[in-house]
Amino acid sequence: MEFQAVKGTRDFYPEQMALRNWLTETWRRVSIRNGFVEFDAPIIEYLDLFRVKSGDEIVSQLFSFTDRGGRELALRPEITPTLARMVNARIHSLPRPIKWFSIPRLFRAENPQRGRLREFFQWNVDIIGSGETLADAECIFTAVDLLAEVGLTPQDVAVRIGSRPLTVAALRRVGVQEAGMEAALAALDKRPNLSAEDFARLAAEAGIAPEGLAQLCAFQDAGDLQAAAEALGGGKEVEEETAKLRALMEQLGHMGAGEYCRLDLRIVRGLAYYTGVVYEIHDAGGRLRAIAGGGRYDNLLEVLGGPEVGATGFGMGDVVLTILLAEKHKLPDVSARLDCFVVSAAPGLGPAVLEVVGALRRRGVVADYSFKRTSLSRQLKEANRRRADYAVIVRADGLAVKDLRTGQQREVCREELLADPGRHLS
Amino acid sequence: MEFQAVKGTRDFYPEQMALRNWLTETWRRVSIRNGFVEFDAPIIEYLDLFRVKSGDEIVSQLFSFTDRGGRELALRPEITPTLARMVNARIHSLPRPIKWFSIPRLFRAENPQRGRLREFFQWNVDIIGSGETLADAECIFTAVDLLAEVGLTPQDVAVRIGSRPLTVAALRRVGVQEAGMEAALAALDKRPNLSAEDFARLAAEAGIAPEGLAQLCAFQDAGDLQAAAEALGGGKEVEEETAKLRALMEQLGHMGAGEYCRLDLRIVRGLAYYTGVVYEIHDAGGRLRAIAGGGRYDNLLEVLGGPEVGATGFGMGDVVLTILLAEKHKLPDVSARLDCFVVSAAPGLGPAVLEVVGALRRRGVVADYSFKRTSLSRQLKEANRRRADYAVIVRADGLAVKDLRTGQQREVCREELLADPGRHLS
Repeated sequence: MEFQAVKGTRDFYPEQMALRNWLTETWRRVSIRNGFVEFDAPIIEYLDLFRVKSGDEIVSQLFSFTDRGGRELALRPEITPTLARMVNARIHSLPRPIKWFSIPRLFRAENPQRGRLREFFQWNVDIIGSGETLADAECIFTAVDLLAEVGLTPQDVAVRIGSRPLTVAALRRVGVQEAGMEAALAALDKRPNLSAEDFARLAAEAGIAPEGLAQLCAFQDAGDLQAAAEALGGGKEVEEETAKLRALMEQLGHMGAGEYCRLDLRIVRGLAYYTGVVYEIHDAGGRLRAIAGGGRYDNLLEVLGGPEVGATGFGMGDVVLTILLAEKHKLPDVSARLDCFVVSAAPGLGPAVLEVVGALRRRGVVADYSFKRTSLSRQLKEANRRRADYAVIVRADGLAVKDLRTGQQREVCREELLADPGRHLS
Repeated sequence: MEFQAVKGTRDFYPEQMALRNWLTETWRRVSIRNGFVEFDAPIIEYLDLFRVKSGDEIVSQLFSFTDRGGRELALRPEITPTLARMVNARIHSLPRPIKWFSIPRLFRAENPQRGRLREFFQWNVDIIGSGETLADAECIFTAVDLLAEVGLTPQDVAVRIGSRPLTVAALRRVGVQEAGMEAALAALDKRPNLSAEDFARLAAEAGIAPEGLAQLCAFQDAGDLQAAAEALGGGKEVEEETAKLRALMEQLGHMGAGEYCRLDLRIVRGLAYYTGVVYEIHDAGGRLRAIAGGGRYDNLLEVLGGPEVGATGFGMGDVVLTILLAEKHKLPDVSARLDCFVVSAAPGLGPAVLEVVGALRRRGVVADYSFKRTSLSRQLKEANRRRADYAVIVRADGLAVKDLRTGQQREVCREELLADPGRHLS
């Protein structure tokens, strides 16, 4: 009878867990210093919450089941619908802007692929209650702050920033109607991964007339906002949206994130609900899946029964980021260490060892000892294996502290050690 | 269209999330200082993993579903089978004793009650690879270290320690056969919550002969090990087991946890898999469900396909502990604070504010600012609402730092502030 982890999920042995904790803590620290507060929610939600946001097709992409009361439940595949549900429930009492982050565990009932698992973690950073481009800049800056914090430079990664309204304008201009917009956006979203021929085929399937393709590509491939606006033939809405993008890029520049960010109108995002700026973070080589993706979604709270309110944010998964950090040798050494390992120098000192261990731990010292009554040298060997900085040696007539990195050893008075362990064990 | 959280689950708004993080971090810190390392595993496991450990009846108590490949999966209701699975997979390479902790999110398909939810967190502390009572003492000490750390005293809580082998011996002595042992243990486990009459009825249903009840209760109610051994009529196994319990209590005393711990042979634990010492932590009044429960389970790894190896540990849920801490006013103030709020003293300084905010955050300062261009006094009001310690005031001709707790304000050179923000903002 041998059991394994379910395919597409991960066991976190202590070495993997330490890395996961490092990443989680880094996400948390960066979020907090950018003025966000953390929330979370149940992993189980009513299936309808996801249906309302994403339509019936989502059902095949998530784990769902029925509880004993006959209710259809699902494991959350993303946190945004939950965020909207929670904010809607307190929309009149929460001071705005609402700056929330979360590090949810998420589930997808898909076949696992490189960079895409069935169970994973995703850092989510959102601002609700502001329509200002400053709120978009704030989210993007927070993502960049994280990238810099983990040692990724503008040579390693880039935030590629596009515009949903400009993309929609470009599609309208080549004759795509409202009813066909979602399919057309989904096709455009795939363009960067397709050859020109394959894209042309997909675009035709999605109802984009072949004679519009060149114009569409001219817009998407525009090197700057001026060229993009010209490709769209100008007009009030185009001017407004390009002005917003220009302001956003300036704000990111002021905050010191400009080097990481660049305009890229090929960024579309597959999901239907974006209403403004959209962006993805990619490795510079573009070999991996997106590290993060996000944008403005001003309608979602309303769709879920709340008011019309500005909302913007992104999600960054743990899987692709960790692959990139491993490739770049940017993962830290997170091996477990002990402050000290308490050893006995002679038989019969077990109770004294326990007293010292208990007292040190209660004072916050990371301390351990051997359950086995072995020789002093074997205990010191275990101390080294456990990566203890110090050994505290318990003798019949007192204590000694040995620095295991230098080999230096000296007597200490027991009361002094316990009164101020930090002074003797550092 | 209004959505709510699924019954028996919890939304963690920022104030609840901060408390959850505080508890999680405290569990983690106490585990680490006691020499444990953290692991985790998927929330989804093969249903059979739980069936093998707990039998078919477990299936109705957990959330299960079938994936697209037709595999029966379940949301974990506990982490111990997963722990055994993971340790078994590396049993030959992991140095022993294996001291692991985990803070898993767990799920039960039950009707929620006070102190018992369908989704919750549970701190698990386990030692595998040691049959010594020191390993049991180590786990219990770690639990006590946590209780003391969160401010609970021996007047608030107690670790009540029983013995599965002595309880089994007592049941054998009154005629219970191996085949009836599990049912008899389950009945005894319920005794503390029942009247004498109700217990007698339940015991009869579980196959305990009425004439044995007085003897059984005399054993369970024994005030010390001597009396318990006498109630069992002595014998080699009884002597060995009482000697182990005595050693355990002494070890806990040496470590400084004695005041929290007491012998209580009415502690049985419902689960079949315990093989040695068993214990529960209860509030002193005994009004709430158990705060924690655990014991020795030397057979579990073998049942799950591994070797016969000593194993011991406990689980402590977040729900009952949090109820008790709230009642005792021991929950800390975890409201979010900012190190500083950056405000502009005049229109047109938006870019300068963004520059200062970005630079401070990159240096680790928890900094925020207002998206709205409002008056200085309104911005300072927002700084106070956000609980900022300082306001950094951006003027056309330089910066000032205002201590929002004292009202003191002084000019600072921008370069100096950014070079060493800690000196100016603390």
